[in-house]
Amino acid sequence: MTVRYDADALLRFGADLFAAAGVPRERAEIVAGFLVEADLMGHDTHGLNLAPGYLAALGDGRMTPDGEPDVIADRGAAITWDGKYLSGVWLVWHAMQTAMERVSDYGTVTVVIRSSHHIACLATFLPVATERGLVMLLASSDPATAGVAPHGSYQPVYTPNPIAVGIPTTGDPVLIDISASTTTLGLAGRLQGSGERMDGPWLIDNAGKASDDPNVLKTDPPGAIMPLGGIDRGHKGFGLGLMVEALTSGLGGFGRAAGVNRWGASVFLQIIDPGAFGGGEAFAQETGWLSEACRSAAVAPGNPSVRMPGDGALKRKRAALANGVPLYFGIMPALRPWAEQLGVETPQPLA
Amino acid sequence: MTVRYDADALLRFGADLFAAAGVPRERAEIVAGFLVEADLMGHDTHGLNLAPGYLAALGDGRMTPDGEPDVIADRGAAITWDGKYLSGVWLVWHAMQTAMERVSDYGTVTVVIRSSHHIACLATFLPVATERGLVMLLASSDPATAGVAPHGSYQPVYTPNPIAVGIPTTGDPVLIDISASTTTLGLAGRLQGSGERMDGPWLIDNAGKASDDPNVLKTDPPGAIMPLGGIDRGHKGFGLGLMVEALTSGLGGFGRAAGVNRWGASVFLQIIDPGAFGGGEAFAQETGWLSEACRSAAVAPGNPSVRMPGDGALKRKRAALANGVPLYFGIMPALRPWAEQLGVETPQPLA
Repeated sequence: MTVRYDADALLRFGADLFAAAGVPRERAEIVAGFLVEADLMGHDTHGLNLAPGYLAALGDGRMTPDGEPDVIADRGAAITWDGKYLSGVWLVWHAMQTAMERVSDYGTVTVVIRSSHHIACLATFLPVATERGLVMLLASSDPATAGVAPHGSYQPVYTPNPIAVGIPTTGDPVLIDISASTTTLGLAGRLQGSGERMDGPWLIDNAGKASDDPNVLKTDPPGAIMPLGGIDRGHKGFGLGLMVEALTSGLGGFGRAAGVNRWGASVFLQIIDPGAFGGGEAFAQETGWLSEACRSAAVAPGNPSVRMPGDGALKRKRAALANGVPLYFGIMPALRPWAEQLGVETPQPLA
Repeated sequence: MTVRYDADALLRFGADLFAAAGVPRERAEIVAGFLVEADLMGHDTHGLNLAPGYLAALGDGRMTPDGEPDVIADRGAAITWDGKYLSGVWLVWHAMQTAMERVSDYGTVTVVIRSSHHIACLATFLPVATERGLVMLLASSDPATAGVAPHGSYQPVYTPNPIAVGIPTTGDPVLIDISASTTTLGLAGRLQGSGERMDGPWLIDNAGKASDDPNVLKTDPPGAIMPLGGIDRGHKGFGLGLMVEALTSGLGGFGRAAGVNRWGASVFLQIIDPGAFGGGEAFAQETGWLSEACRSAAVAPGNPSVRMPGDGALKRKRAALANGVPLYFGIMPALRPWAEQLGVETPQPLA
């Protein structure tokens, strides 16, 4: 069940809310812009759905409304910031601008951010880079929480650790946004309430068995989410999860070992200019050719054709811009008390 | 069934073979060194087992014995080489030296190599970086072959696309070497001969069904290996595979779109100095803490404790250095004709 809204009205609404909560106007528009972008792409758990949590964190000081990150290190092609729990969405946007300004000099520019607040939907940032013909890698972990067990264990030790990759092509970009785990805590939590099962054996119970029952996360001791690859190939997802931990909290020098217990993120971001390597045109020819080869690859009778990562999101975005943004029915009611408290007008749904 | 040999004797033997086949002595020792390193780590499909193929390629001109790669681009932190089908093992070693010399200036140095020959066992290169406190990322694809289907298809379009990551810690390094697919063509080929099944439903048949039968790769039309994640989560492994294609053949500007049909590799290599980010000591504290948290994570009664990526390889290497290197029984007989042809003495097995 969804209700449709005009995209511009949602953007104005989100920006008004964050601005009223103390975030400078320009920055509030950036944060709201990426949340609405997630809603446009159909990733509606990571769009305005996050705004009540962000507003609560702004209200009680867990998110810092204004200021600049501290520069921990800067060697031109390698930058490290302490994000001081500023908006993670704004920090990622700011880091991208910094990296994109420098990337023609260095070919690749990396920004690592420790003590960022939550960075929302990774996929939303990718088109900013791919529209300029740049590749972007983005990964994050949250050192304050754990939900994924190391391969072979059932004890949660680290986070799902998303990895996003934006790849320009001769046509639509490839927009990859995956986690190094089989599923997310969000989905597991939603299904726990509903009594439903997962679509596959993505969890591990405290007897070491694969399970599709979200309640195995609530036993004593609790089970966990498995790394990507599951019970038989989970060593691969475990490796990916460890890679993300090293690139984020490791390079930031601040994470689980430091005892972080505040909701936030460690972030790794890299911008790569194909023009500094084998050439932008040759790059796009390779990635465009591969995209078409995948889209036209044979499927069994009755099966849909192959979708490239991002195809679905771009299709949903085009439809939402034309017909309105569908929001899950619970999202606007959760924002209304904030709108009233902050004196912001709530947008009307489309007819 | 294995036969044990002294590691130094194997190294000398391998170097003698490559030198007799026209590779300069110093370079022959480097190539043989990494092959024997794979055997020491227990990855014996990617050790001296590869030497007959390499010697054949040197013999008929498919591998170039001597010369330097062409520099396509160099911006200090971003280097692109045409490898001219020189030994991929030597090219990776050479690229690592170049990157490690520069990394304290830039924080990260990336080398992309197109038209490399095969690079053997990715994990063997990682300790060279981690021993210096450096992080290393290494990925490769082979644009001349295909075995993995895009998620949703059964048609092979791209390669398993390994990703290796070396992570220094306060103790043993984390040595990750995984592919973006469920399994490899090598394993599938071996099992096709034996009549055995895979240990899980890692393949897809031409009806679009998951299968553990390696013969589904030989039907008309043939099936394929699935991306990591398999039938239900394969969109994630598909994303990783596409990332590797973009970073290797894409950045190199030369791959499947260019119609490459010669056995070889497109290579992406990145060296990262934690000292240029949040600090080497803070990095090792984070990665060391996480390694210990994983190793001590709870397992179900009767299950072995968690192994970190690389733990098994380092244990096998210590045993092989003490007691001799176990080689699968068919490896030395396959090398004997080459030894005779090239006038090289074959080592004697240990008693």
